[in-house]
Amino acid sequence: MGSLVWFTLLGFLTINSCAGRPHPCKSPPLLQGSLSMIGQSEDFQAIAKFNYDALEQRIHFGEFGYYQNKTFHVDALLLYKEGVMYKINRHNKTCTRKELKSSFHPLKVPHNATLLGQVVLGSMSHHGESLLVNSWAGEIPEHKAKYLLTFTKLGCIPVSCLYNSPKTGGITISFFNNIVGIVDPNVFIPPPYCTTATLEEGSNDFFSIF
Amino acid sequence: MGSLVWFTLLGFLTINSCAGRPHPCKSPPLLQGSLSMIGQSEDFQAIAKFNYDALEQRIHFGEFGYYQNKTFHVDALLLYKEGVMYKINRHNKTCTRKELKSSFHPLKVPHNATLLGQVVLGSMSHHGESLLVNSWAGEIPEHKAKYLLTFTKLGCIPVSCLYNSPKTGGITISFFNNIVGIVDPNVFIPPPYCTTATLEEGSNDFFSIF
Repeated sequence: MGSLVWFTLLGFLTINSCAGRPHPCKSPPLLQGSLSMIGQSEDFQAIAKFNYDALEQRIHFGEFGYYQNKTFHVDALLLYKEGVMYKINRHNKTCTRKELKSSFHPLKVPHNATLLGQVVLGSMSHHGESLLVNSWAGEIPEHKAKYLLTFTKLGCIPVSCLYNSPKTGGITISFFNNIVGIVDPNVFIPPPYCTTATLEEGSNDFFSIF
Repeated sequence: MGSLVWFTLLGFLTINSCAGRPHPCKSPPLLQGSLSMIGQSEDFQAIAKFNYDALEQRIHFGEFGYYQNKTFHVDALLLYKEGVMYKINRHNKTCTRKELKSSFHPLKVPHNATLLGQVVLGSMSHHGESLLVNSWAGEIPEHKAKYLLTFTKLGCIPVSCLYNSPKTGGITISFFNNIVGIVDPNVFIPPPYCTTATLEEGSNDFFSIF
């Protein structure tokens, strides 16, 4: 995706003075919420509930989606410390267990991201109608990827992510209904029928669950 | 854009009871702010400041964008009551004046839109980190278009719009830095060199300014 307009925001938006200039932030280590993912083309949409534990480096995803005219459901548990990823079918009580080869990436603004600006979603004209957010842009040269990230100013809660790479195309991710903390830590414990699943070979990372 | 996932939100999101169920709302009649527009394909991005006056049915757009590898700048004034649209070049002090054939559409959720749900952007875990919004989906059969609209629960301020039609492709519009009211009503008065501009023929509507 062309970055011209994103970077034009640098001049367009009101950026804080140096003293109060936002710095790349890291989200709370325990977070749960929901997200929607919409692919640029018509062939991919998904809604997921997630549980995120950066302390123990584990993520749980319960996702429903639509890809190339077919629906899919994914219930995935990624345990980075153990280097294992489970795909769980709770209805059939079956499970696949795969080696998780990528390392854990905490939910944060990359240190080398460029601040586009601080903006208000909604309106500050009346109380309770606004959310102050910081927007950041950057590139990941090894994936030829560009991203635009928006996090709340207070609390560093993710709001949205626009990601574009030749491999994935453009994807818009919106986060909502986030809560700091984990309501039920059992979501990170694989069901009994998972522990007996044979470890399958293959190169797996976060994106392979989709 | 496939609507399957959008409508799945109906079951996925927590919707208020009937008594407190959100109704399609109309934005404040006087509003100014900014918006970004990103086309699904790489060839269109734009940032605009807008002034919106539903009482007098007039809109002013100052927009900078990028389309098919070329930058563009648009300064457009749409006066629906007079049925005229000006494209202004303040640098060269030139102006084009065209007939505006479409009718004024107030900023609102269409009455026949389907409520997807009420969600929190950011997090309610701490004060000042959240924004309560309602999301709506619908179709415009005459344009074969689908849309997903998000407005703040309080105040009915636009937050985002995903629009997809065969004519436009997919477009993501994000609204920010909105203020209820108009800071400078002079933005709705065409500069002197516009009034002498010859009225050009042609079918023009809101989208023709882009």
